[in-house]
Amino acid sequence: MPRIPQLTDEERTVALGAVPLWRLSDDATGISRGFMFKDFVEAFSFMTQVALLAERADHHPEWSNVYGRVDIRLTTHDANGLSMRDIALAQEIDALLG
Amino acid sequence: MPRIPQLTDEERTVALGAVPLWRLSDDATGISRGFMFKDFVEAFSFMTQVALLAERADHHPEWSNVYGRVDIRLTTHDANGLSMRDIALAQEIDALLG
Repeated sequence: MPRIPQLTDEERTVALGAVPLWRLSDDATGISRGFMFKDFVEAFSFMTQVALLAERADHHPEWSNVYGRVDIRLTTHDANGLSMRDIALAQEIDALLG
Repeated sequence: MPRIPQLTDEERTVALGAVPLWRLSDDATGISRGFMFKDFVEAFSFMTQVALLAERADHHPEWSNVYGRVDIRLTTHDANGLSMRDIALAQEIDALLG
């Protein structure tokens, strides 16, 4: 039994409205967003901020970086899918970009 | 014309001997290695060290992270393949781990 509740279809629809720049995966288990920065220093500075948010929330991204590009996917393994923890972290990440 | 010379087959064979824990991609354009740490804090601490090495060398990895796992791929876009810059950065990364 997962410890964290997965969002119901109805909850998911409402929650996704709060993070309109994130794309729901085809299997509805996660959300992802790509970010472009002018160079590696800016991209990795952003990643460091995200890392601190993630550690504080004890909720960690699946992510990749190539120079100025950062791709982040959020899913909740303990829920076998999307949970409010993903939505909350996505909102905090969005807020970093002002 | 690429600005950085790609390794010849012979040079590549010799160079790969210096980084035996890295795997040459099937198309021989890059090398990759996976790293496992006990948690996200250790993984991201390692990534921060790699980021500083990469910025100093002006040579940046393609990499991804999921919790304690870090996967790094090194290739030289300006050489359209593997160059000594990849080998040198791989050696520096390996040295971080003692």
